[in-house]
Amino acid sequence: MKIRVGGKTKNYRTVWFENRSVKLIDQTKLPFKFSIYSAKTYKQTREAIRNMIVRGAPAIGATAAFATAQAALEFKGKDLKKFFAYMRDAARFLKTARPTAIDLAHAVDRVLKIIKKAHSVREAKTTAVFQANLISREYIKVCERIGKNGEKLIHSGAKILTHCNAGALATVDIGTALAPIRFAHNNGKRIFVFVDETRPRLQGSKLTAWELAQEKIPHAVIADNAAGLFMQRGDVDICIVGADRIAANGDTANKIGTYEKAVLARENGIPFYIAAPLTTFDFKTKSGEKIPIEFRADEEVLYATDGKTKVPISNLSSKVKNPGFDVTPARYINGYITEFGVFTAKNLKKLRKF
Amino acid sequence: MKIRVGGKTKNYRTVWFENRSVKLIDQTKLPFKFSIYSAKTYKQTREAIRNMIVRGAPAIGATAAFATAQAALEFKGKDLKKFFAYMRDAARFLKTARPTAIDLAHAVDRVLKIIKKAHSVREAKTTAVFQANLISREYIKVCERIGKNGEKLIHSGAKILTHCNAGALATVDIGTALAPIRFAHNNGKRIFVFVDETRPRLQGSKLTAWELAQEKIPHAVIADNAAGLFMQRGDVDICIVGADRIAANGDTANKIGTYEKAVLARENGIPFYIAAPLTTFDFKTKSGEKIPIEFRADEEVLYATDGKTKVPISNLSSKVKNPGFDVTPARYINGYITEFGVFTAKNLKKLRKF
Repeated sequence: MKIRVGGKTKNYRTVWFENRSVKLIDQTKLPFKFSIYSAKTYKQTREAIRNMIVRGAPAIGATAAFATAQAALEFKGKDLKKFFAYMRDAARFLKTARPTAIDLAHAVDRVLKIIKKAHSVREAKTTAVFQANLISREYIKVCERIGKNGEKLIHSGAKILTHCNAGALATVDIGTALAPIRFAHNNGKRIFVFVDETRPRLQGSKLTAWELAQEKIPHAVIADNAAGLFMQRGDVDICIVGADRIAANGDTANKIGTYEKAVLARENGIPFYIAAPLTTFDFKTKSGEKIPIEFRADEEVLYATDGKTKVPISNLSSKVKNPGFDVTPARYINGYITEFGVFTAKNLKKLRKF
Repeated sequence: MKIRVGGKTKNYRTVWFENRSVKLIDQTKLPFKFSIYSAKTYKQTREAIRNMIVRGAPAIGATAAFATAQAALEFKGKDLKKFFAYMRDAARFLKTARPTAIDLAHAVDRVLKIIKKAHSVREAKTTAVFQANLISREYIKVCERIGKNGEKLIHSGAKILTHCNAGALATVDIGTALAPIRFAHNNGKRIFVFVDETRPRLQGSKLTAWELAQEKIPHAVIADNAAGLFMQRGDVDICIVGADRIAANGDTANKIGTYEKAVLARENGIPFYIAAPLTTFDFKTKSGEKIPIEFRADEEVLYATDGKTKVPISNLSSKVKNPGFDVTPARYINGYITEFGVFTAKNLKKLRKF
């Protein structure tokens, strides 16, 4: 993605591997400060995932792949059996960093699977790093194809609503929900994006708005409460959001509030699309009720922060309930924009072939 | 309402008149600081309404009534004709403080109407103060009756969702939407309240949560985005919210986000009620499309504050769209809890008799 740093425009990825460190654009500091976080050990990388220095299912996937490679590099000794036992433990530990994002487990397992073929610890280490880089590059290609496939749904003049951040920052580059928007804009279509601020963590107003501003895509930040009004007024033509996990029947876990917007879109006759790579589909989970929902710290609701100063914004003696995700039943979703095309819930089965 | 100040529990009203000043609980400082704002002139009182030191349709109504009395007291001279011309200007100026709240115009007009019968400026001034105090006391009685009528809808064990603050702070005392909740709690019913934080101004997490905590009513603050999830899970039995203006057909203007919650309640089979006094009904406005919607400052979305420190919480180079209210069509509303009973949209006509 293009980022203006110190007057110059540079190309950045959200995550990359460099000198045994996982490098991450620190998303807890954006949009107020652009800085690169360096996770030197796989446990540090896991902490970075937990603390949401990196977030978004595919970005977590790529980061977890690099963390798995990092874990391999950290192993001391040449005993392959001990190495595999150690790696199984490391993988299990990495997978618990965030419970809802399916890409995390996918990515860790892919690295684990390929290194099992290695004949030496050394070979396994090299393979792990190679595989993690491959996964990272694949995510970029996949996002490009999601962008191309999704762009067809966006006509010039379209007003698009998006929730949370399913942009370049949520992937390795380009984004999922923001990919069709980037492609439409770059191909000269006049578009406008309504950016839900996305309480409590404000990934919309902090990350999506920042990304769109970097690439000069016309947009406005709105309170999550205002999405309904703009839909009711006919100001929204299409909704595109990302996903954290999609069940076999199309039920989709995504950032808290997605379900609300999907119901409102349906009520107002506005098409609602999920943009996600195949890796976000979890065909083993039959339906949404089976997807675990992460409840997060009260503090996210009770305080607001710009990354430096924290101010209370709630009555602090009150209890809080803070679910991080919700599940949108497939019946509210018009289609799934994937790297293999746009599918309806009914023909999601075709995706299993790939 | 009961408020614990310095270890003691005292009874307070949201607004009262004292020594030519309008006294207001400063709602821009709650829940972090409890302080009384003193508006010494009617223009200062208008500013207090504009700056939301006082908010909520009935509280604005009572405040505007006192401001009208204040305007009368500020007139110098004995020429009744000049006095009435001056009062008409003052009234017009007061009515522009907030465009959506109908109680404001109602209250100003009531004071204006009664003083027209006065035979001297002096008599008019006395009458204006008397009438403003009467309006204020009436609001309290009306809220008591809303509480009694609405309590019948709340069974022991009920989980209630409310949006924004339609509590004692939004009226002179007791509240509208919070009146049935207070009555149910005081009559020993076991209840639990989901408090939408209500972005962008957070009247839920700042004011409603504070009020409920003062009276020890069990509750939890949730992000507005989470209301849908809790409804979907069957955790919400009934929704009760206030109103800023209700059109003749029952369409209701209220805090931004109310429409979203009403649609979600309907989708999940949860009854959705508006609690409001007769003064909030605007029978001259046929339907919701005719209600003007106030768009407010970008700053409310871009920054968060605890009343002292202000921190940016959004990409500041982004545009903002910040509607203060939305209109919920009558078809989503199960009933209107008023001082005269609970009405459906179809039999709202009966209210006109009162």
